[in-house]
Amino acid sequence: MKAWLHNCAGEIPKEIGSAYDLACFELNSAFPDIQWHIRPDPEMGDAYRVYPENGRWTVSGGETGILYGAYSMIRKKDSGQPAPFTEESAPAYSLRMINCWDNADGSVERGYAGRSLFFENGRFAYDPERMRELGRLLASVGLNVLCINNVNVHDPAQQLLEDWLPEAAELAAVFRPFGIRLMFSVDYSQPMRHGIPTADPLDPDVRRWWKETAARVWKAIPDLAGFLVKADSEGRPGPFTYGRNHAEGANMLAEAVRPFGGVVVWRCFVYNCRQDWRDLETDRPKAAYEHYAYLDGQFSDNVILQIKHGPFDFQVREPLSPLLLGMKKTKLAMELQLAQEYTGHQIDLYTMAPMWKEIYEELPAGNIMSIAAVSNFGRDENYTGHPLAAVNLYTYGLFAWNPETDVKEAVSEWVRLTYSLPENDTEKLIRILLSSRRIYEKYTAPLGIGWMVTPHDHYGPNPSGYEYDLWGTYHKADRNAVGIDRTAQGTGYLMQYPESFRKKYEDAETCPDLLLLFYHRLPYSFRMKDGRTLIQRIYDDHFEGLQETEEMASVIRSIPFPGPDREVIDVRMDMQLKNAREWCDIINTFFHRLSGIDDEKGRKIYL
Amino acid sequence: MKAWLHNCAGEIPKEIGSAYDLACFELNSAFPDIQWHIRPDPEMGDAYRVYPENGRWTVSGGETGILYGAYSMIRKKDSGQPAPFTEESAPAYSLRMINCWDNADGSVERGYAGRSLFFENGRFAYDPERMRELGRLLASVGLNVLCINNVNVHDPAQQLLEDWLPEAAELAAVFRPFGIRLMFSVDYSQPMRHGIPTADPLDPDVRRWWKETAARVWKAIPDLAGFLVKADSEGRPGPFTYGRNHAEGANMLAEAVRPFGGVVVWRCFVYNCRQDWRDLETDRPKAAYEHYAYLDGQFSDNVILQIKHGPFDFQVREPLSPLLLGMKKTKLAMELQLAQEYTGHQIDLYTMAPMWKEIYEELPAGNIMSIAAVSNFGRDENYTGHPLAAVNLYTYGLFAWNPETDVKEAVSEWVRLTYSLPENDTEKLIRILLSSRRIYEKYTAPLGIGWMVTPHDHYGPNPSGYEYDLWGTYHKADRNAVGIDRTAQGTGYLMQYPESFRKKYEDAETCPDLLLLFYHRLPYSFRMKDGRTLIQRIYDDHFEGLQETEEMASVIRSIPFPGPDREVIDVRMDMQLKNAREWCDIINTFFHRLSGIDDEKGRKIYL
Repeated sequence: MKAWLHNCAGEIPKEIGSAYDLACFELNSAFPDIQWHIRPDPEMGDAYRVYPENGRWTVSGGETGILYGAYSMIRKKDSGQPAPFTEESAPAYSLRMINCWDNADGSVERGYAGRSLFFENGRFAYDPERMRELGRLLASVGLNVLCINNVNVHDPAQQLLEDWLPEAAELAAVFRPFGIRLMFSVDYSQPMRHGIPTADPLDPDVRRWWKETAARVWKAIPDLAGFLVKADSEGRPGPFTYGRNHAEGANMLAEAVRPFGGVVVWRCFVYNCRQDWRDLETDRPKAAYEHYAYLDGQFSDNVILQIKHGPFDFQVREPLSPLLLGMKKTKLAMELQLAQEYTGHQIDLYTMAPMWKEIYEELPAGNIMSIAAVSNFGRDENYTGHPLAAVNLYTYGLFAWNPETDVKEAVSEWVRLTYSLPENDTEKLIRILLSSRRIYEKYTAPLGIGWMVTPHDHYGPNPSGYEYDLWGTYHKADRNAVGIDRTAQGTGYLMQYPESFRKKYEDAETCPDLLLLFYHRLPYSFRMKDGRTLIQRIYDDHFEGLQETEEMASVIRSIPFPGPDREVIDVRMDMQLKNAREWCDIINTFFHRLSGIDDEKGRKIYL
Repeated sequence: MKAWLHNCAGEIPKEIGSAYDLACFELNSAFPDIQWHIRPDPEMGDAYRVYPENGRWTVSGGETGILYGAYSMIRKKDSGQPAPFTEESAPAYSLRMINCWDNADGSVERGYAGRSLFFENGRFAYDPERMRELGRLLASVGLNVLCINNVNVHDPAQQLLEDWLPEAAELAAVFRPFGIRLMFSVDYSQPMRHGIPTADPLDPDVRRWWKETAARVWKAIPDLAGFLVKADSEGRPGPFTYGRNHAEGANMLAEAVRPFGGVVVWRCFVYNCRQDWRDLETDRPKAAYEHYAYLDGQFSDNVILQIKHGPFDFQVREPLSPLLLGMKKTKLAMELQLAQEYTGHQIDLYTMAPMWKEIYEELPAGNIMSIAAVSNFGRDENYTGHPLAAVNLYTYGLFAWNPETDVKEAVSEWVRLTYSLPENDTEKLIRILLSSRRIYEKYTAPLGIGWMVTPHDHYGPNPSGYEYDLWGTYHKADRNAVGIDRTAQGTGYLMQYPESFRKKYEDAETCPDLLLLFYHRLPYSFRMKDGRTLIQRIYDDHFEGLQETEEMASVIRSIPFPGPDREVIDVRMDMQLKNAREWCDIINTFFHRLSGIDDEKGRKIYL
């Protein structure tokens, strides 16, 4: 299994040492009858141009640009489209990042595809051949930064900056021909492991330690992309400990890495994860904006704030994070999550591209300059656990390159690259993948409310699992109503948005249905725009979600997937069916017990 | 720390090799001025008589009887009562057992007092001196059987019958002078580890294997008490796998151990732990009776069925198990749980003797012939984690000897043995211990409903944690009503009882309050016998439980506990206060959200 690289030539020869050589190798392997003309133009960087010139197909671009041009041609050819063809392209974002949440012990936080590809038993442990295969997968869709360790830096992963540096440099060399630069998650308190009694960013010893460390690290890996930091979040150390704000905290690291061209990617995932459920004032979605917006303009130019796309944490549906709209003078990256933490654990089908499209529709083009996604791959033979989950890694690359990518075309391209199915099965599979997110959404927590999942594990339903807990994720459902009022009359969260945005959501009568319960607290008798009551809409969605899953399952079973995929897909489809049934029945029962209102259509709700 | 043995002489000399020698040593150490006359009478067994004869204090009894007589005198003396005194006593039950749920890896299932005293790293690992101290603790209150390994026999604990037998024999020798015989939990499928393809109790090879094994085991430990078996329960193997009933299963083992005087203690904890929450027919409390009652009379005479005191699983309040009333022709043991699994994890104060008294009041004297309790001790310095939890181990011994033990006297004796406090503090502490169970009950799940705990962990509230799960423990609370109807009109559970019992509980108007929601499904507006509504009673109990915990905390802080106990008690009291507040607030909010009914007294319920 090589995910969507089935049709590519066998292994990449180890001797290939540059993106230029790799591009030549790939083009010559994929188009044996074409004599390519390669015209390097370092100025072009990641951009490329493919065109016929004097009767020869020419590829011009920076070294990586040529590689991306080559892969673009190969992807089109292998997915059955005419290639080569004339194309000119440049990426929308300079850093197109994958964040692996891999731990040194070999586990992967929120990993659903086996153990870490990089680590085991508290040390590096990888198969160089698989590394090259992974590099090829990522490069083939234009991804160029790989952060290999978890943002929660558990001992001994901090050794990446220390004893493990020579090995890390070896790994960096493996990825270099693929145009992929490594990045490391760092522990903000790391100086304290070296006799410095503080990690205060304004402390001279701390600053010196980081400068010396950066010099040492970049000497070993001159093209390291930078450091990724999760500070003051969910138990991680950070500048708050020393009374400093996050600009002070990030800028200190930025100064240390600047001489080497490094960046500091600073995650804006700060909230009170010890909130008391009795506290009605605090509203977790407000936290990121409150912690960062006022610092706009104060960050160094090699700091990138990495902001999750929604204000909570990768629920099936969230509004766009207001912070992505509120920091015009700061370099921003948006963070997506390919790992299906809340979206089915790579058991349930969940194609993310339609969700990303919605996100991009609300995000002005220039607001972000980079993009990151939490990895969904691991040591499983097929990389993503569920073979169909690879569509998310693939299309993420396309969207990271071009946010205006057409969803259907991207998914279709992946299907055709991955499987050689009869055309009507190909079409069926594309349709299923495109509908999978909405189906998952229907059978899980309703209308933007989120969080009705099994605590901690996050697979399967538990409607009150987080309701009396510390995490700030409440629905407050009672016998009359459900939801949190986040308008000006409620927690005021909506006031963090520009006016056009506010207008769209502030009135329950006109608020888009699918975010209705995110923004509003409403009685079960509330009339939706289509005339149904809120409770009936909840029942309908859940019954439909289950029914559509059953239909999907029967289509999936009819598609002639090849050997090993067949079995994995069938087993997981059965698990998804079971999960959909649990969600449907439990959510409906939960709301029926509260509301006492029967389903108008008389379908079975368990009492 | 030696729990309640503070006043006893230092270590027991290693040379002491018999209960007789030990009795002499203890008496001479405790009463240096008295010349005892010891009159062994093997016929008397565990019974003893202490009396003055010809001007000398005389103790007669079997070898162990003399030991128990000695400890009775010492307990009285050390708790400040006049001793020696004339006494004649014999135990109500022949086997007074402790079941340790200790695993070979050193963990203790549901253990709240540190790691195992017996095992670590997959092998025996004990401190012989602590073993003698433990033996002395148990013997001092008349306990005589110690099952050292978990009823869930995880690999490699099955080695107790095999490679570890010589070491087990050494441990048995350590406990022998204390009158304590070991028992082993066995894995019903153990023959299958030895090339036999089945564990079918009627298979000749299986029967031969167990006979040979028993011969080998009793050769090494001739006074081993027997085997303890958890079969066909929560994933454990058992006779059901082979289409055999539990009489066939138990009798096979009984036959194997009979030649050596061994018993088979067979746990009646069989229920469907994969129940679907949608299934309204199955009612877990009915399971034990359904699985065993019809087998009455079919068990060999060296089989003892060990039945949990209630039909569920050690909730704060349960009715007496109907199985304890329904098997007149079978030897029965009742199982209690000293480990505070559902009753506060040895953080919250919870003195069990008042609960046992209630149990005994409903249990005819002759119905059981043995008694067992799950251990609450571990490697913690004070043995029971919370020093005040030792009262449960102590009073268990007294109740196992004599079910008619006076609760207050027993608790008082323990307090006076353990602490030398001023008299008014002694009285305060006794009062607190006696009230602690009712207080815990008030702030947790209401009126016999149970199970509103954090799933799996079982500490702290989660009112719907098990509601949509597999374990058969539902309350079905909705906007109108709460509880399960277990009368003839409902699941029929109550029909498993004799008529007098049924009459007591079948009518909600006359059913004792504290089991009301165990037996009945009732609307929140239901009028309790005292005129309050059900919902008001729920609120009142919870607010009172919290308030009484606060009062208890202030009394506890005022009592001058000695050194190390002081700190442990204070830290845990703070944790209990926090726990009581969570329970009170969460349960009240949960029911207010459902019922919409305010507290009549206007106390704070969080919305």
